[in-house]
Amino acid sequence: MTAKNDLSTLNCSLARALAQVGDAWSLLILRDLLLGLRRFSDVVASLGIAKNILAARLAHLEETGIVLREGTEARPTYRLTDKGEALVPALVALQQWGDVFASKNVPPVVLRDAKGRAIERVALRTKAGPARPRDVRFHPGPGADGRTRAALLAILSRDDVMS
Amino acid sequence: MTAKNDLSTLNCSLARALAQVGDAWSLLILRDLLLGLRRFSDVVASLGIAKNILAARLAHLEETGIVLREGTEARPTYRLTDKGEALVPALVALQQWGDVFASKNVPPVVLRDAKGRAIERVALRTKAGPARPRDVRFHPGPGADGRTRAALLAILSRDDVMS
Repeated sequence: MTAKNDLSTLNCSLARALAQVGDAWSLLILRDLLLGLRRFSDVVASLGIAKNILAARLAHLEETGIVLREGTEARPTYRLTDKGEALVPALVALQQWGDVFASKNVPPVVLRDAKGRAIERVALRTKAGPARPRDVRFHPGPGADGRTRAALLAILSRDDVMS
Repeated sequence: MTAKNDLSTLNCSLARALAQVGDAWSLLILRDLLLGLRRFSDVVASLGIAKNILAARLAHLEETGIVLREGTEARPTYRLTDKGEALVPALVALQQWGDVFASKNVPPVVLRDAKGRAIERVALRTKAGPARPRDVRFHPGPGADGRTRAALLAILSRDDVMS
């Protein structure tokens, strides 16, 4: 999308995150690296993505420190950095949503830990336990600018937020 | 992206999810509805999004059952359906990643439940507790086609995944 560069200027970590990984191909490339694919040609085969698009997305993901390019110039390999690996809960949450709402509860892929235990549905939690999405409230944080602060306080002052 | 329609044909719930919400504007529109904005003009003001783009994205989100249009024809309001609300953990996970890697750990917005308790960092879990992303393994699920099954089994048979 052409406005991607503008997104990073919004006072919002979601917008800033999307400025780095906010297109579907990038997230699917990260999926493939997480699955364990390492080579350009393997990702091309896996996704059916055009080589020029894959090259551009990989270069961007490398620039932003999400993907590390290793190996030789002639035969490079790619893997997730720690920054890239930190995206996994978001990717898994999207996948799980897709399992329910786009794969009719018949998941093509199931996730387990190294000991074979199922990865549970990603959910919001507080110290007291699970939190329902409709109970979440958005408060100005230390990085809020004046406009964000005013907007959030106006919303918080209403009673009918999720109703 | 032009290939969006192709994504839904991949044997992958992440790709299918992205076919429905795989562009940055859609996710930011959902953010605004989650925050509590209800009117077209409020979302325009919040995001600085072009009206024709917002109208197209809202129509798509309504078609896919993620957003519900209410109110009068002249003065519609929009809110998340249950299907839309189910995306919240994914949105929050992306936002939290952005807090760390795009907002330098100075969050513009912090999330609390209705009683003021902080929403914790979204993480992967099994019954036994937190799971590290690098320990996650991908197994063929009941919806795996032959190609997906073969690809995942080939990766599982290697020892060096994530190393």
